[in-house]
Amino acid sequence: MGLLVVGSLGLDTVSTPFDKVEEALGGSATYISLAASYFSAPVNLVGVVGSDFPNRYIKLMEEHHIDLDGLQVIENGKTFRWAAKYHYDLNVRDTLLTELNVFEKFDPVIPEKFKKSKFICLGNIDPVLQMKVLDQMNDSSYVICDTMNYWIEGMKEELLKLLKRVNVLIINDSEARLLSQEPNLIKSARIIRDMGPEVLIIKKGEHGALLFTDDVVFSAPAYPLEMIYDPTGAGDSFAGGFAGYLHRTQDVSPENLKCAVIYGSAMASFCVEQFSTKGLENLSYLQIQDRFREFMNLSRFDEKV
Amino acid sequence: MGLLVVGSLGLDTVSTPFDKVEEALGGSATYISLAASYFSAPVNLVGVVGSDFPNRYIKLMEEHHIDLDGLQVIENGKTFRWAAKYHYDLNVRDTLLTELNVFEKFDPVIPEKFKKSKFICLGNIDPVLQMKVLDQMNDSSYVICDTMNYWIEGMKEELLKLLKRVNVLIINDSEARLLSQEPNLIKSARIIRDMGPEVLIIKKGEHGALLFTDDVVFSAPAYPLEMIYDPTGAGDSFAGGFAGYLHRTQDVSPENLKCAVIYGSAMASFCVEQFSTKGLENLSYLQIQDRFREFMNLSRFDEKV
Repeated sequence: MGLLVVGSLGLDTVSTPFDKVEEALGGSATYISLAASYFSAPVNLVGVVGSDFPNRYIKLMEEHHIDLDGLQVIENGKTFRWAAKYHYDLNVRDTLLTELNVFEKFDPVIPEKFKKSKFICLGNIDPVLQMKVLDQMNDSSYVICDTMNYWIEGMKEELLKLLKRVNVLIINDSEARLLSQEPNLIKSARIIRDMGPEVLIIKKGEHGALLFTDDVVFSAPAYPLEMIYDPTGAGDSFAGGFAGYLHRTQDVSPENLKCAVIYGSAMASFCVEQFSTKGLENLSYLQIQDRFREFMNLSRFDEKV
Repeated sequence: MGLLVVGSLGLDTVSTPFDKVEEALGGSATYISLAASYFSAPVNLVGVVGSDFPNRYIKLMEEHHIDLDGLQVIENGKTFRWAAKYHYDLNVRDTLLTELNVFEKFDPVIPEKFKKSKFICLGNIDPVLQMKVLDQMNDSSYVICDTMNYWIEGMKEELLKLLKRVNVLIINDSEARLLSQEPNLIKSARIIRDMGPEVLIIKKGEHGALLFTDDVVFSAPAYPLEMIYDPTGAGDSFAGGFAGYLHRTQDVSPENLKCAVIYGSAMASFCVEQFSTKGLENLSYLQIQDRFREFMNLSRFDEKV
């Protein structure tokens, strides 16, 4: 059984102080699927595009053993588009355009053969749609869910309902503070885990990530990159690496969750080294394991006896 | 030979959302010395207070084997005073009062018996004074130096001269960005190390700390505290734990610097658990080692074979 990934697919126009790309492959489901594809095959993708979606992107995903039977292609429809400009300080970005297009009426339909997926990764979309996915699935699936400030602010009630059915919630630090209304991240984590998810991951960008379970707090370092070409998709790549590794190992013990966080961090670091999805397109599993080991060296210390 | 600590001693009035203290023991040299006292004895303190400095604070420092022969007590002088109020989000603070008093004319004089100290920890004071300390010392000392945005902005030229004579610079992330004029912390670290210090530590508060040497980048986690009573002195306690451990072990290899960063982080975590210097006053070395091990568990992961 593959890993089920549901989310957006889009065409991104992004400029950073270093370069610019137009109508590049984007969307949460895209980054998640590509990142997960290095760990688990097939990845079962559910999403929607218009008939203007370039065939080369379809081909790219197929080459990555992403099963596109759940991809709705709307005849004469226009694919979701997004444009943004990053500042010199890449932590600051202006969104220039959000055109939902075919995504506006997206109604996720899970193909019969995907319904037994034991692991589900819900990309950052409307919590109502995320819930619709779960309604079609086997209740015993392990659900990994991403969301963002937009839904926390605008759809809190629906999001809170969803969270009761989620095993792992992945959000960033400002979203955690917003959702919990608590500035201290450790307290914030307890409050959010009380909302439903037994596992919470708080991504902190250049400061790494925190994993919270019943008994464990784990602090993952960030990969020390001197050059970040394009931060777009870093969070989705994290989710993809995390979910892919869990699906590959079929082990959700705290110790293995830690490794999944590191593999997620590794995939995010590959993602931001190039524009769009380029950094996720031609990796070898050996490269990924090397980076895993680099993460290990980054945070390991031993006291001399 | 003891560890030489030079910096400020003061009386702090601090309020947080949880409580308030008036004229409590404060100052960079105070926090550094108390934190270092658990690792290395004696700690040789050089600083200045007025004759209004409470005797119980002198006694407290003596109990911690802090050698006060370098402490100038100015007859009829008034001790340095500082007042601040922390917001609900403890990352935000308003400084309400800074009265330099006797500190305004502080001219550090290093007692003859302190001059052979092999390790020097320069607390956050005017870089001109920090330089005056080094001018009186043996050139072979290992120099650990703290500074802040105030000096980076107002005394950059003097600071740059000082940095050429410093082995380890300890600053926080916003200070690193300010000093290097570079938002990416990894690039920033390279730029700052080119200014002189072979070792750079960037403190990131709730996000831990980064250590940079020629060949090593090390990421230390932050201790997951649900309750921070008073953040005052956390950075100084870090410097004290770091310097004290290096002095105790007399080993400045990259592997040992990593441990020193963890001991520094441990002392900072004890510091913020209580008001003023209270968290540093009654620890046992066993407690400190336990916390060291907690830091280890916080960041350690192993891939199953």
